[in-house]
Amino acid sequence: MNLDRYKKIDEKDIEYLKSVLGQDRVLSGDEISEDFSHDELGGISKMPEVLVEVLTTEEVSKVVKYAYENNIPVIPRGSGTGLVGASVPIHGGIMINMCKMNKILEVDEENLTLTVEPGVLLMEIGDYVKEYDLFYPPDPGEKSATIAGNINTNAGGMRAVKYGVTRDYVRGLELVLPTGEIIKVGGKVVKNSSGYSIKDMVCGSEGTLAIVTKAILKLIPAPKKSISLLIPFPNLSLAIETVPKIIKSKVIPTSIEFMERDVILAAEEFLGRKFPDNTADAYLLLTFDGNSTEEIEKDYEGVANIVLNEGALDIFIADTDERKEAIWSARGAFLEAIKASTTEMDECDVCVPRNRVADFINYTYELQKEFNVRIKNFGHAGDGNLHVYILKDKMTEEEWNKKLSQVFNCMYEKARELRGQVSGEHGIGFAKKVYLKDQIGDVTSILMKNIKQAFDPKNILNPGKVC
Amino acid sequence: MNLDRYKKIDEKDIEYLKSVLGQDRVLSGDEISEDFSHDELGGISKMPEVLVEVLTTEEVSKVVKYAYENNIPVIPRGSGTGLVGASVPIHGGIMINMCKMNKILEVDEENLTLTVEPGVLLMEIGDYVKEYDLFYPPDPGEKSATIAGNINTNAGGMRAVKYGVTRDYVRGLELVLPTGEIIKVGGKVVKNSSGYSIKDMVCGSEGTLAIVTKAILKLIPAPKKSISLLIPFPNLSLAIETVPKIIKSKVIPTSIEFMERDVILAAEEFLGRKFPDNTADAYLLLTFDGNSTEEIEKDYEGVANIVLNEGALDIFIADTDERKEAIWSARGAFLEAIKASTTEMDECDVCVPRNRVADFINYTYELQKEFNVRIKNFGHAGDGNLHVYILKDKMTEEEWNKKLSQVFNCMYEKARELRGQVSGEHGIGFAKKVYLKDQIGDVTSILMKNIKQAFDPKNILNPGKVC
Repeated sequence: MNLDRYKKIDEKDIEYLKSVLGQDRVLSGDEISEDFSHDELGGISKMPEVLVEVLTTEEVSKVVKYAYENNIPVIPRGSGTGLVGASVPIHGGIMINMCKMNKILEVDEENLTLTVEPGVLLMEIGDYVKEYDLFYPPDPGEKSATIAGNINTNAGGMRAVKYGVTRDYVRGLELVLPTGEIIKVGGKVVKNSSGYSIKDMVCGSEGTLAIVTKAILKLIPAPKKSISLLIPFPNLSLAIETVPKIIKSKVIPTSIEFMERDVILAAEEFLGRKFPDNTADAYLLLTFDGNSTEEIEKDYEGVANIVLNEGALDIFIADTDERKEAIWSARGAFLEAIKASTTEMDECDVCVPRNRVADFINYTYELQKEFNVRIKNFGHAGDGNLHVYILKDKMTEEEWNKKLSQVFNCMYEKARELRGQVSGEHGIGFAKKVYLKDQIGDVTSILMKNIKQAFDPKNILNPGKVC
Repeated sequence: MNLDRYKKIDEKDIEYLKSVLGQDRVLSGDEISEDFSHDELGGISKMPEVLVEVLTTEEVSKVVKYAYENNIPVIPRGSGTGLVGASVPIHGGIMINMCKMNKILEVDEENLTLTVEPGVLLMEIGDYVKEYDLFYPPDPGEKSATIAGNINTNAGGMRAVKYGVTRDYVRGLELVLPTGEIIKVGGKVVKNSSGYSIKDMVCGSEGTLAIVTKAILKLIPAPKKSISLLIPFPNLSLAIETVPKIIKSKVIPTSIEFMERDVILAAEEFLGRKFPDNTADAYLLLTFDGNSTEEIEKDYEGVANIVLNEGALDIFIADTDERKEAIWSARGAFLEAIKASTTEMDECDVCVPRNRVADFINYTYELQKEFNVRIKNFGHAGDGNLHVYILKDKMTEEEWNKKLSQVFNCMYEKARELRGQVSGEHGIGFAKKVYLKDQIGDVTSILMKNIKQAFDPKNILNPGKVC
């Protein structure tokens, strides 16, 4: 890609942006915090030439229109909690900080929708709709992500087993196109077969096709009861091989997470508090929800029999808020805890058919030995989406880059062999482009490039990402 | 659009197609049944120049590749049950009859998926998965549609209130692109954030972006119990205004259909059998499903109280297979029954927010008076998707065309005003293109055209449809 083909920001550009947004919401040079040069995993970093803060759709539109006319890259950014460099301005340009467009605009109890601005945080949505006895099911681990970030990665989270992913809960979007034009797609409607579904394509497009400036989300009535089961197993293979048997029994838990002792110990240390049990090598964490205790009990009793038959060591029931919080706060801290245990790390979040999860994890054990590198796994056993972390520890930079590349090549090849996908929910961004291309091949790759061009003929919106 | 820019079929083309498919599966001229010139509603008709029957993906690929190289239109066709002319070969060319690619390939009980060829009928899927205690929720009225037809319209059906639409149940697709190349998108995975979701865009694209040659569908465990409530009301407005109140009570029935006395009488006559009750002016038909009688009872008792408070005249419970079948077979015959009651008709299946359904229906009453034309309504009160039929009766052709156009203009404008969409599930095809363009405006319209071009640079796949 020709880096020189974009216009560099100059004083005139900054003046224009200040005329639109005011003096205080346009930062350049040293005024920009280093935080904006990278995301959560930071494998790649680059400072934007200018950082602007927007408050309205019209402001976004004006900034993008200017960038389009002047051939300047534009990168929308939320909380920066991504893991694949999707929000890093690798070609410089204008970064638009969307975080202050963070109002919850409307809850509609008759249509079961919530209308929000893009910078609303996932955790705020959960808390807000609870007051109405409503529920927004998508539940990615990182609760401080913005909703537009979730939409742009099509994040799935813990409850995808039962409830599906973010795309399934997006009814309508307001978008600023790379030309600066504003369009609305979808709405409060439940069904829509009115032309190509731009809404569904923008979901998961990692800020490369359009900027989300408003979203209408689908809500459901909040389940009245939920219960979690923490189930120790003598080893992880046994734990994970139980999952397809649970599914085959026609019970669909809300979530089925797996975790290893090592990761639990790291989380205990990171949080400074104890997990309910840490004596077994591996655990399944299952949640069931429903409208009555009896309804849930019937489901989990069946599952309890299955897991005990398959070799589970015990079953800990978490039915109080306190116990659930102890378990789920540890689960929520896994990523940070692993990160704190090493010098640097990188991630792989392949998604494989759920009856192939054990195959993949056993393969990561082999790779750990073969390449003499620490690899930590946790993730969503119920939906086949693994979060695998490769740790740098004391390796030199050179050794690390070489091993990481070798281990990734092996992992993504294995995922293909198991008919999995490169990313379940973290996206492709910058870091996984080469693996996506290997997976999908030339024909699909060219088709994706054509789609990008259909939205963004000048390739100014978050360039160098996805494809 | 320049009709002359496509190559006309000649002997050489037919020879080539016969060399690929054999003598018997290539028909031309008088050998082609008139059925293939129109769909179920037949507002438009045109014969294909050649009709081919395919048995494999490779055959589809070869035919499409030839058409691409020679600039010949290609139109995929399933059962022909569409209502908007999407499968009519308006520019001639090669029609590909997909109906013999009709094998159910695999049920996977561990991943809860069903892999099917495109010509499998909706009714076959329901019956097949039942044997495994599994369930494919999408339930459009027309059970003899092919699954690829359902995917291409993103049909929703009766159960969308609780379970969502066809797109939500498509996990993976095998596609033949307009160039003849074969690609696979998605798979058995539950989550996928690996580049632009071609799968989600092809769903609902009405055979204009790619030809579906295989589909991996998501299944869920079959609910063990279901019950229907037939609820008479003194008038339709009262019936429909009750629906948002049901939703607001945090109970989500599987389906909420509305019907008027007139339509029920027409169905009785059409089927030659009695509906359980035909004394009231209007009815709601609600279904609840779940895993136990108690679970369902709790839901429907709450709803029963609401509807009686809101003025329902009675509640008929259908809990036996026989009673349910009597009601649902009538519901399934509404379209045919209305069709049989007039000389010709056309349809409108706007989808509006569900608390605006009553507004829209009352407006159709006004139009009925204003234009002195019979208009019949039925549809999905629970998801806001109306099926409105305008009847020609004894009008002259000229009068009919004029009135239809006037009535449609009013209806689609009203739908826009209520923030609805042109089509909930029937699609745009040929018949609704002008209304789609009015609805979405120039910017979105051009974007859709760009997307079409990204897939189909020569515009040979089902040209003249959608946009």
